[in-house]
Amino acid sequence: MPTKTLAPTTGSFTLPGEAGYEDLTLRLARTWGADTIRDSDGTQLSDEIAASGYNIYSTLCLVRADNAWARANPTKLQQSWLMSFPVMADGDTVRVDLLKGYFREQFRVNADAGPHEWWQVFDRTAGTEIPTAQWNFNSADGTVTIRGTTAWHSYTVNFFAYRIWEEISMYNHVTNSWGDREHLMPIDPIHPEAREQMLAYLDRWIAAHPHTKVVRFTSMFYNFFWPWGDEPKRRFVINDWGSYEFSVSPAALLAFEKAKGYRPKSEDFVNAGLYCTSHAVPSKVYRDWIDFVISFVTDFSRVCVERVHAAGKQAYVFYNDHWIGLEPTDARFVQIGFDGIIDGIFSGFEARKVAATPGVTVRELRLHPYFFPTGVNGAPSFLPGGNPTLECQTYWIDIRRALLRAPVDRIGFGGYLHLVENHPKFIRYVVGLAAEFRELKELHVKDRPYTTPVKVAILSAWGTLRAWACCGHFNHGNPYNEVMESISGLPVETVFLSFEDLLRDGIPADIDVIINAGRRDDSWSGGRYWTDPRIVEKITGWVARGGGFIGVGEPSSAAHGGKFFQLSHLLGVDRELGLSTARAKYAYDAAKPGHFLTADLPPAIDFGKEVEGIHALDGDTTVLLDANKSPRVAVRAFGEGRSVYLSGHHYSPSNIRLLHRAILWAARAEKYLDRWHCRNASTECVYYPRHQKLVVANLTAKPQTTTVTLGDGKKTKRVAVPGYGCKILDV
Amino acid sequence: MPTKTLAPTTGSFTLPGEAGYEDLTLRLARTWGADTIRDSDGTQLSDEIAASGYNIYSTLCLVRADNAWARANPTKLQQSWLMSFPVMADGDTVRVDLLKGYFREQFRVNADAGPHEWWQVFDRTAGTEIPTAQWNFNSADGTVTIRGTTAWHSYTVNFFAYRIWEEISMYNHVTNSWGDREHLMPIDPIHPEAREQMLAYLDRWIAAHPHTKVVRFTSMFYNFFWPWGDEPKRRFVINDWGSYEFSVSPAALLAFEKAKGYRPKSEDFVNAGLYCTSHAVPSKVYRDWIDFVISFVTDFSRVCVERVHAAGKQAYVFYNDHWIGLEPTDARFVQIGFDGIIDGIFSGFEARKVAATPGVTVRELRLHPYFFPTGVNGAPSFLPGGNPTLECQTYWIDIRRALLRAPVDRIGFGGYLHLVENHPKFIRYVVGLAAEFRELKELHVKDRPYTTPVKVAILSAWGTLRAWACCGHFNHGNPYNEVMESISGLPVETVFLSFEDLLRDGIPADIDVIINAGRRDDSWSGGRYWTDPRIVEKITGWVARGGGFIGVGEPSSAAHGGKFFQLSHLLGVDRELGLSTARAKYAYDAAKPGHFLTADLPPAIDFGKEVEGIHALDGDTTVLLDANKSPRVAVRAFGEGRSVYLSGHHYSPSNIRLLHRAILWAARAEKYLDRWHCRNASTECVYYPRHQKLVVANLTAKPQTTTVTLGDGKKTKRVAVPGYGCKILDV
Repeated sequence: MPTKTLAPTTGSFTLPGEAGYEDLTLRLARTWGADTIRDSDGTQLSDEIAASGYNIYSTLCLVRADNAWARANPTKLQQSWLMSFPVMADGDTVRVDLLKGYFREQFRVNADAGPHEWWQVFDRTAGTEIPTAQWNFNSADGTVTIRGTTAWHSYTVNFFAYRIWEEISMYNHVTNSWGDREHLMPIDPIHPEAREQMLAYLDRWIAAHPHTKVVRFTSMFYNFFWPWGDEPKRRFVINDWGSYEFSVSPAALLAFEKAKGYRPKSEDFVNAGLYCTSHAVPSKVYRDWIDFVISFVTDFSRVCVERVHAAGKQAYVFYNDHWIGLEPTDARFVQIGFDGIIDGIFSGFEARKVAATPGVTVRELRLHPYFFPTGVNGAPSFLPGGNPTLECQTYWIDIRRALLRAPVDRIGFGGYLHLVENHPKFIRYVVGLAAEFRELKELHVKDRPYTTPVKVAILSAWGTLRAWACCGHFNHGNPYNEVMESISGLPVETVFLSFEDLLRDGIPADIDVIINAGRRDDSWSGGRYWTDPRIVEKITGWVARGGGFIGVGEPSSAAHGGKFFQLSHLLGVDRELGLSTARAKYAYDAAKPGHFLTADLPPAIDFGKEVEGIHALDGDTTVLLDANKSPRVAVRAFGEGRSVYLSGHHYSPSNIRLLHRAILWAARAEKYLDRWHCRNASTECVYYPRHQKLVVANLTAKPQTTTVTLGDGKKTKRVAVPGYGCKILDV
Repeated sequence: MPTKTLAPTTGSFTLPGEAGYEDLTLRLARTWGADTIRDSDGTQLSDEIAASGYNIYSTLCLVRADNAWARANPTKLQQSWLMSFPVMADGDTVRVDLLKGYFREQFRVNADAGPHEWWQVFDRTAGTEIPTAQWNFNSADGTVTIRGTTAWHSYTVNFFAYRIWEEISMYNHVTNSWGDREHLMPIDPIHPEAREQMLAYLDRWIAAHPHTKVVRFTSMFYNFFWPWGDEPKRRFVINDWGSYEFSVSPAALLAFEKAKGYRPKSEDFVNAGLYCTSHAVPSKVYRDWIDFVISFVTDFSRVCVERVHAAGKQAYVFYNDHWIGLEPTDARFVQIGFDGIIDGIFSGFEARKVAATPGVTVRELRLHPYFFPTGVNGAPSFLPGGNPTLECQTYWIDIRRALLRAPVDRIGFGGYLHLVENHPKFIRYVVGLAAEFRELKELHVKDRPYTTPVKVAILSAWGTLRAWACCGHFNHGNPYNEVMESISGLPVETVFLSFEDLLRDGIPADIDVIINAGRRDDSWSGGRYWTDPRIVEKITGWVARGGGFIGVGEPSSAAHGGKFFQLSHLLGVDRELGLSTARAKYAYDAAKPGHFLTADLPPAIDFGKEVEGIHALDGDTTVLLDANKSPRVAVRAFGEGRSVYLSGHHYSPSNIRLLHRAILWAARAEKYLDRWHCRNASTECVYYPRHQKLVVANLTAKPQTTTVTLGDGKKTKRVAVPGYGCKILDV
């Protein structure tokens, strides 16, 4: 039965070229069947490569492109509000060295915008703001002196700092030990002069790049939030791909004030040092800020893209680094007019994010490892001790699951090509990977994979704004992210819903199952939204009428009304946090095997970071799995609907299977399990009805065999799939 | 070296007698060396026993003594505010059957006191009170109908219910299957008529008990909070030995209003169904209520005790059951004039509680198992399958640790003596136990055990009000209780401090180490008190000047000011709860062995219910033990002082040793470890300087050997101590 599609043997592949390695570049382009060659930060393409007949992507980052201009215009640099590290008073005066603890090569205190107008000083112990009359800034040494302090209280200053080293080139510089190479500085397009300069630069750049077919914006203007520290053992102070904190400046706030009618305070962004990160439930101010930045970025990005188009070139955007304000799920995204989107990814959910981008004709994945000596976590990739093939295989298993459900157009790599030269095993592996990608891509042509008629909505405080995204790459241990990764390859339609959506529009009529997965107070579970009775009311009524609800970790959690899980009446369980210890707990029946959810669960299943202290409400809750008298899997009927509680979720074959079963059970769609279904949970299959092809993919490193139940309920003979591999069957 | 003291071979022992088993009673009295015979609930002493020459304790519980009067005065029964179980609306009207879910044999809805004056109805989903105009009570069927409800919101009613079955006799009745024996009802001395009746009954009773030497009040008036449910799999709705909820009634509230100038609302006590339990940080209202009840109980108890004294008898009180309002640490306790106190206990901390009672001449422990077929947890004691000897040995190890530090005067048992008859092994064991008790008691005569000159204060929201107490018997897994149990046998002076004490008086000058052990928001850690800057300020300054601080679990925890542990600057660690996930964590150095704290720690130590997600703040924190990159033991210097963090504590030999070392290190008193100290942590020793005797006690079931470092630093040869046993050495 194993078969091949009629997929092309070349194309859909982007190779990072490198000047000085022209032979290698062209040789690997042929070996891997590349149709496109790109440059990377730190590499150039020589004329020989540029004129070699391949499509050429050229990276361009306008905010750091002209460092001379940046040097000449130090007040036009990008900035950020920072909170100084807390300083404890031992008397009635405290002197705060604002940048102490921060990486001083990244920041310079902004002494230009009046501190007393923009900054705020707090007694964090008391939780009170210090009146401006009690503090003053010394611009000579970058300190703030606070008078009238209370001994043993901690004080912090929210201040504006210019960013004097653009973060991505800083990271590349430091990672590759670029020594005294000039530090590039990010300029801020909020200033008309900066926009003029950037457009003029773009025009010059276009004129200088006749071979370039695709301008690969890497990326637009504002980087995700990434302040560094001066402590080698804590290199980053904060690292949040989803946070807009690096888009704030006095000029932007004044423009915001004009647009929205009010001016946020520094504390709206600093939030006692927690900042507005992906994990915090977004405030109204912060949601307004995101809206404002999206509009600004959309408008100026469109102008840039129009210039590219006018020159007969295409504009792709790298959906990372300076991506802030580019939200593919926001209606304004398509107004920019990008032709393509590229993202550097590791996981299935990220592949789904790229695949779901509207309005572009090319969706491309930059795979990992990046051709750097070390990876983003500092571990060796192409250095001795690294195993780039194993890295690539490991990521590909997860990415492939997602691509079987939702295709992208291209794959590629980035970085320094010469690092690959001495890794023949890796070179061979990528030959096969590229061929497999082309095969699988072909299956989506004029076809869509068979999908169970079950529609799932993942409910969080972010909704579609973080569809197939969390806070960057895989945030292991985060229940929302773990569930999203598992569902990225499941045969169910998945959408994202925010509490604001729910309050405004209710639950869409076509949703079968809602999933809420998160921890107490975080944006993923929803935090304070669960104290809004309208939320509880809508979901409860919807379940009563037949909806399905799945809660993972601390779903619907808030200390409110004497309960913790605000939907405990649906879930049938709640969590004991120590305050209701005196309440006796219901002695639920011992977990019985054989329920639909747990039918093929292994004897021990690892839920990863799991919630304990769970208790069943009463006999209407059926506990399917428990540990130390704490339910791990529980189900309950409510009215016409059903709910499932999972105390944790960890992306793994067994957990994927359990989640799949939970979704079908909650949707009262159990009958769909046994269609196009692998018996062995370490494998998954996807059926393409028009091609009449069935892909059986191995989710693990080890060889697996499985029988597959086909659409008519008949079973195949055992199918063997090699470790990391997949098989395409005619059926 | 093993030796004996000159302890008497009889006495200090109370035997429960039983009519119908006169021979057994007198035989066991001789076997165990009893000097006193008592009755129990459900047993009588025959004239033969009463006249046998032994001291006679007679139990008396005035609130349930005259059931005819209770029946004739149904409005004078004790009552309680209860919250009805939540009822979810599916339309605009909700009918709440008030007692649904409660044990209807325990409660009767109080229809006498105007519901609209006293009760409150809540929409718990919205967190709002329903105006009285929207609900009415139907006394015929005990329901409340609420109009204008919102579908899918949950509603509850706070209502007054009479208690129609006195809880302790109810428990005894149910546990021993007393069938149709009359249900005793508790009358409320808040009513003058009830007080008159109780005193008249007391007078009659005294007259009828000429042989009684000691009136054993079992106990005074108000039981701890113990509403039962009607669901066999959740027999108790709440069970909290420390809660005053059963002392509330309209009459008491009116008296309170007169005394305190305001009238609490039902919700002040019901607290959305969480009630005012031991685990909740007490509100001002609740603290006022406790104060009010203490005064009331003191005043009327004194009257009762005076009558007993006038009759030439002594008055002992059983510090349990109806103990509410008797707080030995409150100055009013001694005004009552009790001659003795008795408590039924299992653990060391409970023994310390009895030992610390001021103003009485006799302190007595009633040991376990109680001579009942089953124990308080429902497991068999004297029924087949039970092992009363093992139970008794297990408790005795823990109790003995405490008694070596702080003596009591007597021990005894309670229950049905005839159950013991066929347990010769148990009878033999108690012979030895009684002898051992008398030996150890003798060591305290004109002597005090050697104690390290280190004074520890345990800081909680309760302070001395719950000195050597938590929420009843050992609340396993509660860090406060676990620490208290461990410290109950350590050679350090221990006091208890509340946040109110600290705010009022500061930290007493003689305190060396403060321990805060608890979980987020609970009364043991302190909850909202940690958002009070004065608390942080006082402790921080005190540590800076040389104090020692030990935090266990979630010490000083509150979501406030961007941190979670409000004393993280002292502890050097904080806990990640998911909101600061984007913050990079300091990569602390690998835990190194050999620190004073961990010097004799076993390779694996079980902290019980442990807190994870801990991170070190910076390089000033030394992590001594960790798991999964989460510190378990960390130390830090701050100014002249020192702090220790323990992620959990579980009463066990290794944990006791670690806590002991932590206390000495925090107090900068390491040098005291090696004085009168057992090398083997499964043993402990206590030295009595005037007797020049050293007790080496085995903390385990297995035989142990140890060397002991004496006061001069010299070491003994190996001392062997049998399992459960102890040895007394002349030194």
